[in-house]
Amino acid sequence: MALALSLGRRGLGAVWPNPAVGCVIVNEGRILGRGWTRPGGRPHAETVALAQAGAEARGATAYVTLEPCAHHGKTPPCADALVAAGIARAVVALRDPDPRVNGQGLDRLRAGGIEVVEGLLADTARADQAGFLSRVTEGRPLVTLKLATSFDGRIATASGESRWITGAAARRMVHALRLNHDAVMIGAGTARADDPMLTVRDLGAPRQPVRVVLARNLDLPLDGRLAASAGEVPLWLVHGDGADPDRIAAWRARGAELVRVPVVGGRLDAGAALAALGARGLTRVFCEGGGTLAAALLGGGLVDRLIGFTAGLAIGAEGRPAISALGLGGLAEAPRFMLAETRALGGDVMHVWQRDRTG
Amino acid sequence: MALALSLGRRGLGAVWPNPAVGCVIVNEGRILGRGWTRPGGRPHAETVALAQAGAEARGATAYVTLEPCAHHGKTPPCADALVAAGIARAVVALRDPDPRVNGQGLDRLRAGGIEVVEGLLADTARADQAGFLSRVTEGRPLVTLKLATSFDGRIATASGESRWITGAAARRMVHALRLNHDAVMIGAGTARADDPMLTVRDLGAPRQPVRVVLARNLDLPLDGRLAASAGEVPLWLVHGDGADPDRIAAWRARGAELVRVPVVGGRLDAGAALAALGARGLTRVFCEGGGTLAAALLGGGLVDRLIGFTAGLAIGAEGRPAISALGLGGLAEAPRFMLAETRALGGDVMHVWQRDRTG
Repeated sequence: MALALSLGRRGLGAVWPNPAVGCVIVNEGRILGRGWTRPGGRPHAETVALAQAGAEARGATAYVTLEPCAHHGKTPPCADALVAAGIARAVVALRDPDPRVNGQGLDRLRAGGIEVVEGLLADTARADQAGFLSRVTEGRPLVTLKLATSFDGRIATASGESRWITGAAARRMVHALRLNHDAVMIGAGTARADDPMLTVRDLGAPRQPVRVVLARNLDLPLDGRLAASAGEVPLWLVHGDGADPDRIAAWRARGAELVRVPVVGGRLDAGAALAALGARGLTRVFCEGGGTLAAALLGGGLVDRLIGFTAGLAIGAEGRPAISALGLGGLAEAPRFMLAETRALGGDVMHVWQRDRTG
Repeated sequence: MALALSLGRRGLGAVWPNPAVGCVIVNEGRILGRGWTRPGGRPHAETVALAQAGAEARGATAYVTLEPCAHHGKTPPCADALVAAGIARAVVALRDPDPRVNGQGLDRLRAGGIEVVEGLLADTARADQAGFLSRVTEGRPLVTLKLATSFDGRIATASGESRWITGAAARRMVHALRLNHDAVMIGAGTARADDPMLTVRDLGAPRQPVRVVLARNLDLPLDGRLAASAGEVPLWLVHGDGADPDRIAAWRARGAELVRVPVVGGRLDAGAALAALGARGLTRVFCEGGGTLAAALLGGGLVDRLIGFTAGLAIGAEGRPAISALGLGGLAEAPRFMLAETRALGGDVMHVWQRDRTG
């Protein structure tokens, strides 16, 4: 199952709106087939592993990281395929909460005469599937917020200089993180200030994550790098009700996808924006700031995971803050996270935090 | 030598103005004596180790972490004591740059017929002696700056609430760090806001570091905890030329030691303040903020070591910054540090940085 999980993880960022599943078929200690959900979401992991195993699958055990599907989507149900191949025993890490599955996949396996074991390494599977589970159960993608700061929490100098605060190793890790998310997301201020590409570079990436910019009024430069590349790399612009129709048309002409969400209190409704992204199939979103968007997400309780890169330099209080005003009444109201990992990365510190759901 | 170094470290924070030295006397693989500089700076490590070894010291090897003294201070020179005891060979990690020693200790050993080996584990010894070396060569103590912040670099909410951002383990570590420094130092704003004791608690500490407060106008509450405890635990107040003589007298009456330094551009001259502390014998100062003092020290290039504690909570841009304005012209001017260590501590991240002397 540990192998199946590690295979499944290969699909993270590449298979949305589908879950990234892994499958290993074993008989008498011999591995007959290995599969993982392929880019775009098909073929499914089970299909790949069964094809490898061929006739040897008869009587074997299949380890699957998520309950096999029970419904006819664009492919026939994997549960039926496992039965048809003569699998004797299925070990499933986690039940799929999608209402079209949710136990029905296991039922179909059992009805087909397969012995089913459920729950092996379920916690790991749940962590790996956090994005898919968030979309199915909460209707929004998993949100990872990145903060790359000086050790006093600044993301740029007062004049906006931010290249580079963190070192090459941290920046490379950021590109690897982009690659295992479905989308990279920033706010309009960062888009204007940095004119970024938001692509994955220097990792031989076979595909690029969707680039999402939250820009209430679509006040973004039409002559910038995002606009120039909108035809080749997906660019989704989330804007408010009142955005200028001419700007909408201009961005659409450049190849961007426009996503309209309500404005609440003069700001884009961050929860509605994420719901709209979830409805379009995104399961894992990597937010790279800036401070205003970070504050909106943190203030709305919408950040699931936080990844900090702390560099060994001081910028001082006039530098740009990583997180804008949160309007806390007191320390007890502060959004809290639990430490998952810390390590040195090049000359910087990388620290990973998970949302504290006990608070 | 590694043992001698670890013994020497026991004296850190307790032996100023003297260096914290360790000494081990060995013959044919048998340890005959172990010594380290005792609290207050006397007896010296060599004296303690020789006393343990007694007559067996004859013909033995002495491992000493710092060159034995050559001058008559409050005790006779250790170099002479080693010769008198009949030590055959002395292994010395580091030369003592104090002009009264600086090679003369080694000369006295050689003149007494002792074979001298110099430089074993010199880098470790240099790191351990950083405070003593700073005082002797730069005339000021080693400065360690502590920053205990939210992950967005805030030390308190807008209303000043700061208890507690970091967890119990980090706070305990802070007390241990206070204990291995000669003095704990804060600015006047922190003294007014927190009314702290600045003592070492819950560690069975046999002594307390000197408490230093930088307060240009001595604008500190005479009814606070610092004032109430000034008779029992040393309290040094560093003030500017223009401080009110009545306030000076009032603080002196409570038992505080007053240290006067120049005011430059409306602020205490941080370099002059540290020089005054060095002149009074301090070798290791642990600065606990606040943001104004942190900025003055960083801006003046006066921070040798930085210890960050990052907690898993967000406070937002209206919170109090760990470092006040530095007035940087650009990122290239930012004070830079090299990562020495990072690790999880309770639920927080501890990260230790050393001044980057290559920049």
